[in-house]
Amino acid sequence: MNDEVILLDYWASPYGMRVKIALDEKGVDYECQAENLQNKSPLLLKSNPIHKTIPVLVHNGKPICESLIIVSYIDEVWHDKSPLLPSDPHQKSQALFWADYIDKKIYDVGRKVLWEKGEDQEMAKKESMEGMKKLEGELGNKRYFGGENLGFVDVALVPFTCWFYSIETRGNFSIEAECPKISSWAKRCVAERESIAKTLQDPHKLYDYYVKLNP
Amino acid sequence: MNDEVILLDYWASPYGMRVKIALDEKGVDYECQAENLQNKSPLLLKSNPIHKTIPVLVHNGKPICESLIIVSYIDEVWHDKSPLLPSDPHQKSQALFWADYIDKKIYDVGRKVLWEKGEDQEMAKKESMEGMKKLEGELGNKRYFGGENLGFVDVALVPFTCWFYSIETRGNFSIEAECPKISSWAKRCVAERESIAKTLQDPHKLYDYYVKLNP
Repeated sequence: MNDEVILLDYWASPYGMRVKIALDEKGVDYECQAENLQNKSPLLLKSNPIHKTIPVLVHNGKPICESLIIVSYIDEVWHDKSPLLPSDPHQKSQALFWADYIDKKIYDVGRKVLWEKGEDQEMAKKESMEGMKKLEGELGNKRYFGGENLGFVDVALVPFTCWFYSIETRGNFSIEAECPKISSWAKRCVAERESIAKTLQDPHKLYDYYVKLNP
Repeated sequence: MNDEVILLDYWASPYGMRVKIALDEKGVDYECQAENLQNKSPLLLKSNPIHKTIPVLVHNGKPICESLIIVSYIDEVWHDKSPLLPSDPHQKSQALFWADYIDKKIYDVGRKVLWEKGEDQEMAKKESMEGMKKLEGELGNKRYFGGENLGFVDVALVPFTCWFYSIETRGNFSIEAECPKISSWAKRCVAERESIAKTLQDPHKLYDYYVKLNP
């Protein structure tokens, strides 16, 4: 295949990182176009007119939006290498369930810890830790959420780990103390998967960026 | 196949209706177990320990949760009849995009119109109408969102139409006036698909139920 693959992205976005990891795992060559979120490109506005958000994957001129849908798409189109979703329908449904959980109870709630104030922030902190502990239970003693190999749920969650430092600092709690298995898993992902090591951003750089936006 | 298929459900839930329509379209025999949401069954708590919500499909003893994930699962397992998701990966990604949009911008926002008060309700009304108009644009002059045949997006949206009356009454606006194509589509769905006609609840019965909970 002589594919044109363009990723519209923003460096700090964990959603964009999901897509980069999936493309790297599949060995897909792509061009990354950095968006200025204050002045979005015509290609972004045309490709995602509904949400106007990154990431967007433009594959041979056709856009795909929403990070988990993009990762599913990548997994289906480049299916020969590094399968991410199980082929068994029930196992697949479980992976989709946990990825959906991560979007709603980890990313959305983590964002509230960073951006809300007062009582709303306290509620988000509590909900965030409860959510992380349920994930800790789901991981259990497995190497990856996907079992012996990196899978869809791993790709969904791991970009969020480079935001842990900001969330812990702003929320004044320790994810490592509460969720040692998730912490070990996060280190294992970086140590074992080059796709992840090269994609995740430096937690301190992200914190500096965040503090500038929300002093 | 000699399958045991059990649906844990609650009569007023549009999420549960999605699953019933999908099972009916596929011609799957199933047993529907009505849950008492004030006193949930041990089977529900065991099958969906994370969210503890209906609907849950229990297929040969294995639970699947979250309505859109259940409908995808049904479409994959019973793939010979009435395909709901397109087989082409790009077309599939577009159907998943719109179903996700319907969850976030139609169901979640519609619920806010029903349950929020004052300014929050006004904002939800505005967002609800904007969301519906974008769907109206996506439908355009097609027979169904799926094209000539009922598809995944139709199954995702149509149960919500029996809640339109409650939302219009509480929000004091007319979806039909603003979105004539969606209104015609909703009538067409009921007229043409027995799976839908037998599943959707009476809008006035739903309104009475809602008003008792939120006078």
